[in-house]
Amino acid sequence: MAKKLTAQAEDFSAWYNEVIAKAELADNAPTRGCMVIRPYGFALWENMVAVLDRMFKDTGHVNAYFPLLIPDSFFQKEAEHVEGFSPECAVVTHGGGKKLEESLMVRPTSETIIADMYARWIQSYRDLPLLINQWANVFRWELRPRAFLRTTEFLWQEGHTAHATAAEAEEETLRILDIYRTFAEDYMAIPVLYGPKTDAEKFPGALQTYAIEGMMKDGKALQMGTSHDLGQNFSRAFNIDFQTRDGSREHVYQTSWGMSTRTVGAIIMAHGDDRGLVLPPRLAPHQVVVIPIAKSDEEQAVVQEAVDKLVASLEGVRVKVDDREQFGLGWKFTEWETKGVPLRVELGPRDIASGQAVVVRRDTGEKEFVSLETLGKRVGDLLETVQRDMFERALEFREARSREIRDRESFMSAANGDGGFILAHWCGDPACEAAIKDETRNTIRCVPMDWEADPGTCAYCGGASERKVVYAQAY
Amino acid sequence: MAKKLTAQAEDFSAWYNEVIAKAELADNAPTRGCMVIRPYGFALWENMVAVLDRMFKDTGHVNAYFPLLIPDSFFQKEAEHVEGFSPECAVVTHGGGKKLEESLMVRPTSETIIADMYARWIQSYRDLPLLINQWANVFRWELRPRAFLRTTEFLWQEGHTAHATAAEAEEETLRILDIYRTFAEDYMAIPVLYGPKTDAEKFPGALQTYAIEGMMKDGKALQMGTSHDLGQNFSRAFNIDFQTRDGSREHVYQTSWGMSTRTVGAIIMAHGDDRGLVLPPRLAPHQVVVIPIAKSDEEQAVVQEAVDKLVASLEGVRVKVDDREQFGLGWKFTEWETKGVPLRVELGPRDIASGQAVVVRRDTGEKEFVSLETLGKRVGDLLETVQRDMFERALEFREARSREIRDRESFMSAANGDGGFILAHWCGDPACEAAIKDETRNTIRCVPMDWEADPGTCAYCGGASERKVVYAQAY
Repeated sequence: MAKKLTAQAEDFSAWYNEVIAKAELADNAPTRGCMVIRPYGFALWENMVAVLDRMFKDTGHVNAYFPLLIPDSFFQKEAEHVEGFSPECAVVTHGGGKKLEESLMVRPTSETIIADMYARWIQSYRDLPLLINQWANVFRWELRPRAFLRTTEFLWQEGHTAHATAAEAEEETLRILDIYRTFAEDYMAIPVLYGPKTDAEKFPGALQTYAIEGMMKDGKALQMGTSHDLGQNFSRAFNIDFQTRDGSREHVYQTSWGMSTRTVGAIIMAHGDDRGLVLPPRLAPHQVVVIPIAKSDEEQAVVQEAVDKLVASLEGVRVKVDDREQFGLGWKFTEWETKGVPLRVELGPRDIASGQAVVVRRDTGEKEFVSLETLGKRVGDLLETVQRDMFERALEFREARSREIRDRESFMSAANGDGGFILAHWCGDPACEAAIKDETRNTIRCVPMDWEADPGTCAYCGGASERKVVYAQAY
Repeated sequence: MAKKLTAQAEDFSAWYNEVIAKAELADNAPTRGCMVIRPYGFALWENMVAVLDRMFKDTGHVNAYFPLLIPDSFFQKEAEHVEGFSPECAVVTHGGGKKLEESLMVRPTSETIIADMYARWIQSYRDLPLLINQWANVFRWELRPRAFLRTTEFLWQEGHTAHATAAEAEEETLRILDIYRTFAEDYMAIPVLYGPKTDAEKFPGALQTYAIEGMMKDGKALQMGTSHDLGQNFSRAFNIDFQTRDGSREHVYQTSWGMSTRTVGAIIMAHGDDRGLVLPPRLAPHQVVVIPIAKSDEEQAVVQEAVDKLVASLEGVRVKVDDREQFGLGWKFTEWETKGVPLRVELGPRDIASGQAVVVRRDTGEKEFVSLETLGKRVGDLLETVQRDMFERALEFREARSREIRDRESFMSAANGDGGFILAHWCGDPACEAAIKDETRNTIRCVPMDWEADPGTCAYCGGASERKVVYAQAY
């Protein structure tokens, strides 16, 4: 805890690695490309899981579990899918002491094995819609791993639904996109742009991929969740058909969608500062850390009573009381700042004697004296204020680092500059998109669907364009 | 739903497979030896997870996540461990399109990789105890898979703790055994015998394994959870040492413990009957199914109002209203009986006119008329009654199928008979244990630790014995 973090402005990437280590979110694993999610990081993920799981269930989804190991032949059935995922797979070739007749792929995603089961389960329109989600570990071989952002193994949820019509599948795809947007903005406190990806960036096997994209504090974009309209690509490959109301047979229309432990990286990078993590109250493992201050046994008794009262008044709030004797106050303050706990409450005998406590906000550092009688209420209010302010600051930051650019010269200069979002016209030609990626490492993050049509000319080729897109360097 | 289940008495194994299929708990997967846990089965598991997770957290444990793939060399470090698990492992030999330099084992259990991390995290007595649990998927190659009981992939929790003294590790091992016992009896409604395993049956690498053992309705035993005192076996192999209070260095003392989706099999086999599942109310996905009965639109309106009132009066109860129009009453009754929903409430216009509803218990088939005004309260009470009665019946069943036997002839005859528990003396010689297993397929399930010492003579060799043990055929 002694050594300070590298400043974000000095080396954002070093800051990121250091804060993960110091806040004890994760550790490098002995398995290449993998991480260990430590208890503090996992508690954050558990809170995210609980909220998302509730949102999925409230919209009619149920959970299930499908095998991790997928027969190789399944991947061969959908051409784009095998091309996209096979090179990234971990492969089981031996089991039970013998070489297997057919290799098993460690799932990079589960469309294929789930499609095989859906073909058995779905017979009639009465079996539709089928709305299943799975919380699972998945594998994509990573050559340049980064904790949370890109690890060979990661945790996620993957939704897989089947519908009777294309319209219902599209509706589901957008319903989930809206859940992801709501989760990102209302819980993670990260404003997102949302809309379809270009064909070059879509999921292998999907008709259309929609994404939510957030801005990190280095101005780069992070894709935080994707929702795919699969159309009939997998239902044709796996022959998932059903009897319609009028007695004919048709292939189902499917969607799939996922959000992963990568979102933990988003929270770190969208809110953290030079002193460490800044966690949004709605997801923080500890929303409040209470630090009793007492030198003598006598003081100890007085303070303990005030702590007990405070904890009792904070029902429903996640409170951590740090009464460890082996650490000094300065150490404790620094530790909980590094760990990003939204509020710190200091309770000492002098404060108590004057009927108050000190409350410090992690996000602003603001300190205030609060009457002990209203402390419970004030803490609850402050948690909501911090949550809201964090979102507002992230939004202001994104606005400040977003530029609308129309001419090619300014575009190329900005794209090769110091990051941020570039809102610019694109003619729709994959060649322009590819050239820009090649020359500037900027990709089209999404085509924001809530922006009004606004005809113009492509920032690269000058061709006619219907609407603007968002370019950025991305994780 | 049309075809009846095979009777338990006719073919218990066929009944088991059929009830899993008909109740839609699980399905065979296309991956050899694996199953798909379907939404209804997974909802049951989710309820079990929620309760156990709360019990672990209430006793100071935190969750974390460690990699699925473990370098082969890790297994080689603890001799018994590698011998026990290597033959069962699935092995990843290729990743990212290349052959790996070192093969990766798909975790059969995580002692080794967690020990490697603990060696980094634990420096001082201040870092102890370290109390971590993980919810995860694990793999043990199965040649004769059975859904839930023995599948190549299964879900479980695995606790891994490190302590400063042998006494603390032993205390933790027993604390967890007690949590498992409480969970089995108070939630699964299955009485268990509990105590240490013999050396022949202990976990590879443990000093001592404790287990809880339940009786299934065919008289066989099922091991439902194990808690291991690992002593310093892994801390020596992985060099997990710490600075003690007096400044010396010592290896930590460890425990590990697990409960898996196998327990779903226990609930099926301990309570099910010829009509299907019978689920304990505290874990059932739906505690109450409400079946509205209405023929006309007019009746429909009256019934709907009563249903809404009932649902509102059952806050905190997991209620399913089955208002599907495409199925008749008989079909619905059979479906929810097969699925083991503890209580069925029928609400029809005639009942409502006379101010009452019909409530039917799944466990006994008892039907009663309950006043609409007290229905909410009565349902709550009945759920508790059903939970208690299910435990009592399972206990009576176990007692009726347990025999105390002292002489060899009766012992061998009973052990080769039609199942049940045999309480008999054992001299402690592994040779007697092995001979009995060989000749009767009975194993020592555990040495019940709450039984008083009761000297006698070994049922096999006649040698002196301190106490009785429990023999049974087991899953």
